[in-house]
Amino acid sequence: MNPQNKLKIVNDPIYGFITIPSPLLFDLIEHPYFQRLRRISQMGMSYLVYPGAHHTRFHHALGAMHLMQKAIYVLRLKGVEISKKEEEALNIAILLHDIGHGPFSHAMEHSIVENVSHEEISLLFMEELNAQFNNRLTFAISVFKNEYERKFLHQLISSQLDMDRLDYLRRDSFYTGVSEGSVNSERLITMLNVKNDLLVVEEKGIYSVEKFIVARRLMYWQVYLHKTSLVAEQLLLRVLKRAKELTQQGVELPASAALSFFLKNHVTIEGFSVKVLDTFSKLDDYDIISSMKSWVSSEDFVLRSLSEMLLNRNLLKVKMKSKPYASEKIEERKKTFQKKHNLSANEASYFVFGGEVFNQAYNMETETINLLTKTGKVVDVAKASDQLNLEALSKKVVKYYLCYPKSDY
Amino acid sequence: MNPQNKLKIVNDPIYGFITIPSPLLFDLIEHPYFQRLRRISQMGMSYLVYPGAHHTRFHHALGAMHLMQKAIYVLRLKGVEISKKEEEALNIAILLHDIGHGPFSHAMEHSIVENVSHEEISLLFMEELNAQFNNRLTFAISVFKNEYERKFLHQLISSQLDMDRLDYLRRDSFYTGVSEGSVNSERLITMLNVKNDLLVVEEKGIYSVEKFIVARRLMYWQVYLHKTSLVAEQLLLRVLKRAKELTQQGVELPASAALSFFLKNHVTIEGFSVKVLDTFSKLDDYDIISSMKSWVSSEDFVLRSLSEMLLNRNLLKVKMKSKPYASEKIEERKKTFQKKHNLSANEASYFVFGGEVFNQAYNMETETINLLTKTGKVVDVAKASDQLNLEALSKKVVKYYLCYPKSDY
Amino acid sequence: MNPQNKLKIVNDPIYGFITIPSPLLFDLIEHPYFQRLRRISQMGMSYLVYPGAHHTRFHHALGAMHLMQKAIYVLRLKGVEISKKEEEALNIAILLHDIGHGPFSHAMEHSIVENVSHEEISLLFMEELNAQFNNRLTFAISVFKNEYERKFLHQLISSQLDMDRLDYLRRDSFYTGVSEGSVNSERLITMLNVKNDLLVVEEKGIYSVEKFIVARRLMYWQVYLHKTSLVAEQLLLRVLKRAKELTQQGVELPASAALSFFLKNHVTIEGFSVKVLDTFSKLDDYDIISSMKSWVSSEDFVLRSLSEMLLNRNLLKVKMKSKPYASEKIEERKKTFQKKHNLSANEASYFVFGGEVFNQAYNMETETINLLTKTGKVVDVAKASDQLNLEALSKKVVKYYLCYPKSDY
Amino acid sequence: MNPQNKLKIVNDPIYGFITIPSPLLFDLIEHPYFQRLRRISQMGMSYLVYPGAHHTRFHHALGAMHLMQKAIYVLRLKGVEISKKEEEALNIAILLHDIGHGPFSHAMEHSIVENVSHEEISLLFMEELNAQFNNRLTFAISVFKNEYERKFLHQLISSQLDMDRLDYLRRDSFYTGVSEGSVNSERLITMLNVKNDLLVVEEKGIYSVEKFIVARRLMYWQVYLHKTSLVAEQLLLRVLKRAKELTQQGVELPASAALSFFLKNHVTIEGFSVKVLDTFSKLDDYDIISSMKSWVSSEDFVLRSLSEMLLNRNLLKVKMKSKPYASEKIEERKKTFQKKHNLSANEASYFVFGGEVFNQAYNMETETINLLTKTGKVVDVAKASDQLNLEALSKKVVKYYLCYPKSDY
Repeated sequence: MNPQNKLKIVNDPIYGFITIPSPLLFDLIEHPYFQRLRRISQMGMSYLVYPGAHHTRFHHALGAMHLMQKAIYVLRLKGVEISKKEEEALNIAILLHDIGHGPFSHAMEHSIVENVSHEEISLLFMEELNAQFNNRLTFAISVFKNEYERKFLHQLISSQLDMDRLDYLRRDSFYTGVSEGSVNSERLITMLNVKNDLLVVEEKGIYSVEKFIVARRLMYWQVYLHKTSLVAEQLLLRVLKRAKELTQQGVELPASAALSFFLKNHVTIEGFSVKVLDTFSKLDDYDIISSMKSWVSSEDFVLRSLSEMLLNRNLLKVKMKSKPYASEKIEERKKTFQKKHNLSANEASYFVFGGEVFNQAYNMETETINLLTKTGKVVDVAKASDQLNLEALSKKVVKYYLCYPKSDY
Repeated sequence: MNPQNKLKIVNDPIYGFITIPSPLLFDLIEHPYFQRLRRISQMGMSYLVYPGAHHTRFHHALGAMHLMQKAIYVLRLKGVEISKKEEEALNIAILLHDIGHGPFSHAMEHSIVENVSHEEISLLFMEELNAQFNNRLTFAISVFKNEYERKFLHQLISSQLDMDRLDYLRRDSFYTGVSEGSVNSERLITMLNVKNDLLVVEEKGIYSVEKFIVARRLMYWQVYLHKTSLVAEQLLLRVLKRAKELTQQGVELPASAALSFFLKNHVTIEGFSVKVLDTFSKLDDYDIISSMKSWVSSEDFVLRSLSEMLLNRNLLKVKMKSKPYASEKIEERKKTFQKKHNLSANEASYFVFGGEVFNQAYNMETETINLLTKTGKVVDVAKASDQLNLEALSKKVVKYYLCYPKSDY
Repeated sequence: MNPQNKLKIVNDPIYGFITIPSPLLFDLIEHPYFQRLRRISQMGMSYLVYPGAHHTRFHHALGAMHLMQKAIYVLRLKGVEISKKEEEALNIAILLHDIGHGPFSHAMEHSIVENVSHEEISLLFMEELNAQFNNRLTFAISVFKNEYERKFLHQLISSQLDMDRLDYLRRDSFYTGVSEGSVNSERLITMLNVKNDLLVVEEKGIYSVEKFIVARRLMYWQVYLHKTSLVAEQLLLRVLKRAKELTQQGVELPASAALSFFLKNHVTIEGFSVKVLDTFSKLDDYDIISSMKSWVSSEDFVLRSLSEMLLNRNLLKVKMKSKPYASEKIEERKKTFQKKHNLSANEASYFVFGGEVFNQAYNMETETINLLTKTGKVVDVAKASDQLNLEALSKKVVKYYLCYPKSDY
Repeated sequence: MNPQNKLKIVNDPIYGFITIPSPLLFDLIEHPYFQRLRRISQMGMSYLVYPGAHHTRFHHALGAMHLMQKAIYVLRLKGVEISKKEEEALNIAILLHDIGHGPFSHAMEHSIVENVSHEEISLLFMEELNAQFNNRLTFAISVFKNEYERKFLHQLISSQLDMDRLDYLRRDSFYTGVSEGSVNSERLITMLNVKNDLLVVEEKGIYSVEKFIVARRLMYWQVYLHKTSLVAEQLLLRVLKRAKELTQQGVELPASAALSFFLKNHVTIEGFSVKVLDTFSKLDDYDIISSMKSWVSSEDFVLRSLSEMLLNRNLLKVKMKSKPYASEKIEERKKTFQKKHNLSANEASYFVFGGEVFNQAYNMETETINLLTKTGKVVDVAKASDQLNLEALSKKVVKYYLCYPKSDY
């Protein structure tokens, strides 16, 4: 293929157009490892609450790469030198930053794989792609791993104000229709700068940063931790856990070859060979959902019921408050349900359970967002001004939930 | 459930909010027959070209219902009487107008089922729902079937300016990011009126109507009939056709129970019993895609190759022009490929084929769009003005395409 | 005119369409007292910073009326009874709530008129219109003055979450292009309710309220109190003050008849007769700007220089910080300038001056925003949750500024 | 001023941000000749119909310059070489292309000045600025005058698809809220290319071009030639004509110095000295509107009545149709009105008059829009395809109007 033909333009409802900046980026996008992200939803089961939320990790990765190009453009305009090589590394790293996500990633990290984070898998994919592409990703990987001395490159990929967040908050707000959560990514980017090789926000951007953090918190409570999304995700996690439990007991469940592999094996990070990686790369939302569709005919009450609930959006009830639910109350509900359906205690615990979720809009302990004052000083945004309220936003807020079956179940 | 609780509000990125107008509508939406539309993409494989185009038939149906509420509000404001009963019928009929769609509907109508249109299946679903809901849909069905005397009700559901089109053009334009195709649905609705129980557009809306038709044509050529979408859809059709062919020859292909049924049986409209309907209701995008994912390991060269092409977006080449391709040329290509891979002529025809697509932006022969002049006369919009160019837009335009494998295949 | 013809629809870039809800409203809009608002800019000289900010008080008043109709619709849907009479009163009161604004209102309140607020003048206009319209505004005026027992009516017109703010924040954000200040007015309205005849926000709206307050604060610091806007407004105030000073000294300045009247007379609220009101109603932006355009040829150095600065956007320099500027420093600068141009101390003080601005995003002492919890309790939003940070937002923030001429002046 | 400080960014509600690309451009914008455009409305009296339409020629000029930067970026990406010098010339020429507009330009061209077009005055301004800026505009002027050999530069400034149109159609649609008239300028720009130094549109853009032309026509009939705008513009023209007539008869009318000059003198292009130009540069909307505000107290019935009509939006009635109005009918109405108010025939003709307006959406005779086919050929878009209907759009459409006083006048 003519290299010129690889400088494609992709339509995007949010930014208008996304340009693929180089033939190497084009080839990475074409790779089946990346194409699979077309079949992995960015927001898992959230579409049960927000019917527009069907956008994919594929689209988010392209969007983040688009914002990276904007950031590079803005920084160069302000006199920050970024070489061609650094530019390509930034584009590669942001494109691939989430390539390790599997289907319904959060539910899966605790069921299908065992304590393997998607970040670790992203790195495995990058290394395998690096091998396939004659080491042309080596530098990008070092930036991704924060081994490169100009730290702002890594910060553009991963920090409290990185291109990843700037895209996903905007995109998730856009597709859910929760417009209060919208972040004006392009405007925030115009306020970025670099000082001592670290990413900073210009002083005039202080209110925009605060608004970004408030919007982010709003998205957490209103969308990501929405009661119905939460219960759906918990159900999904339990469907997979139950399927693995049954498989381990020797039950043969209908499932795709790739899914079967992960149900049968305990895969840890140590065991994540290239072959396992390749099998992992075959997994996507379609494996999970279509398995559930066959599991509604399963003989197992738990697997069948949970699958049905998710497919027909007839979920468990869920309550949420700021104090934990008394464990006796939970136990009581569990027992009632156990008796009603003649289940084991373990089985009943799939239907009645509590848990907690938390959110911290701004983290003052890890890497902070830094402001560049007009006089050239660099200060933590949370301390920049007596009028801001970021300390309040830095508090970790915990909520407790309780899930249990509807009365007619 | 408390009836008050059924007056839900749903977030929509396009309209902001969609209100569910009555408990009956709420219950219809909750029904598994309708919930399944969450798993059926509105635009099939178009996301291979437009990565944002993952919206579902579920969402479109809600959107069309939202526009219907707008239209009822506007018409009543203008003095058109619409009873409560008529209002509910309109909402039901528009909500369910597309419920008969299966996964990748256009590909499927010519493979999985045999000459059964989605409109016919929609009606079967409505009748079954009517049975389940104690005949509360009877009136809505008569409006849907155009048996009610006030014809504008049917026209709001199905005509060249119905709520279906006003939503899907807007929605498809929105999600693809092809903003030139955008139709200002709400504005067009404010220009609707009723004269002699027929739907009309007020005279001042003449340019808006024209712009609507031009936008519609643009969407056809730029999106719906986009070369890459077209070849993907043709490949999908052929995957299913091949799977059916093999199944009929006795090959056991991995597939969900519902899909297997349709591969094994020749289902015509006559044989579409309630039981078949129920099986049909189990089919969605997940059955098709996950089957293809297993078919990439099939022994059959055709099935395997076509499935791979779709999953990795490594499609056939496609050319398009306004004159038919010479059949000798097609045959020649076919033979070359047949020889190269040692296939039968039938098998080769899955990889090399031609066809035609057409589009008619405005149809002057079927039901026209009528203008209401300031003096109260009703005229066909195409004849309303010497300056409009709808006659040109009424021409049927045909294009011919040719698909064949890439040179390295 | 046929009453039906008064149910007009007006185009609005923000809401799409604004409907004029009754013939009386139509007639009020047609009245010259209201039409004059077409010639009064909503944001004064802010267009010197934000070139899009040319929207008028006329447009804002229509927008607020549009939101009022939305609010009435939403509240009725939730079972809040609002009679036809109350509805019309709400629409009238919100339409006319700002009718008392003169050109560049804030600058004028301290120069042209003397300690007469625009609210007082609004009431005078309403009373005069009531006389002209046969007392059909009596009830609306009682709602406006908060004399009606159902307090939520007044709150919709004037409170921390009224239709006035919901429109102007949205509109000002829209026209300036400062999109971070955007408030999703329609969404906030859907969360309103009424409890014990008081306006409340439903609990789920808590984050939206917070975001509204944060957006409001951002608009203050970034737009309303923007350094350049501030200095332009201060200059305008001083132009008018100087013109009045000179007029009082007997100098004849070119000015429109209406402006001349206010330059010659000391008008207080007591002296605001109907005749004065009528003269006031002749004043608009065009009187002020065109006077300045002739004053650039004035013999008076102060009047001439300040007018020139504004017209050619060649303003004073301005600094801003959180502590007051030392008065000696100000005096020093003043003296230097005085000497340089051979001015009196009073004259120099037109060019060198300090001042303060403040902003309080949420006022906990006056009327609070109340939340309605799911259990039906009403609580102040600032106390509703340990995770919110409204207390920080309730702090009054003061900033001090210093204006002085550019070095080459 | 530090040159770096001149690389300002301006907020724009449409494009987000507009960058000022060089210190020279910054200085041109700062010049009083350009700053005056802040006081000249882009759409004249159209705000009487569309209350949002208060945007200025200043803002449009910046917007067009922004699009020019986009176009340069896109063309360079496609391999079209554009030197730094050519880039600056393009930016200067587009920034200044409309600098010759006076207030309510179309009305003024036939009253205040005499057969002097705004294009001619633009050139005078450019030449004077060139003198003031040490001939740094010489090359830009040659591009503007189409004397440079690479014709596409001029075409970007002035052709059927220039940056001027792409901005004003978008901007006028945006501010009026007539969203059907919206043109996706950025998308159209991405489809531009250059072939043989001429501007072309890539073939795939054919539907976008057509939609652009249809949108343009819609804007004409719905906005620019809207009946109420039309009658307001005709009234304004007649107010100025009457004022000039009276002045010529020796009547002293209140007016600003600049306006007085043009009322007293017959200014033709030959007499347009630098001094006249400078006087012209003092004229803006404020001169016209504030003069009318004083003219409502004039002794002259015509001047007084027409001024009142415009200020209180109590206009003449207007009818429009596709055939001319019979001159006897016009005369009859004129005589009735003449008798009623005891006027001369000339005076009555200010209140009763007919005229015609026309629109040609696409002009096939002057410079056409050219398509670049995939095979590299260049064809006129109107002939490019049998399915397009540009020939219909090329017809010149004429409408005739008749204005006369309301019955109670």
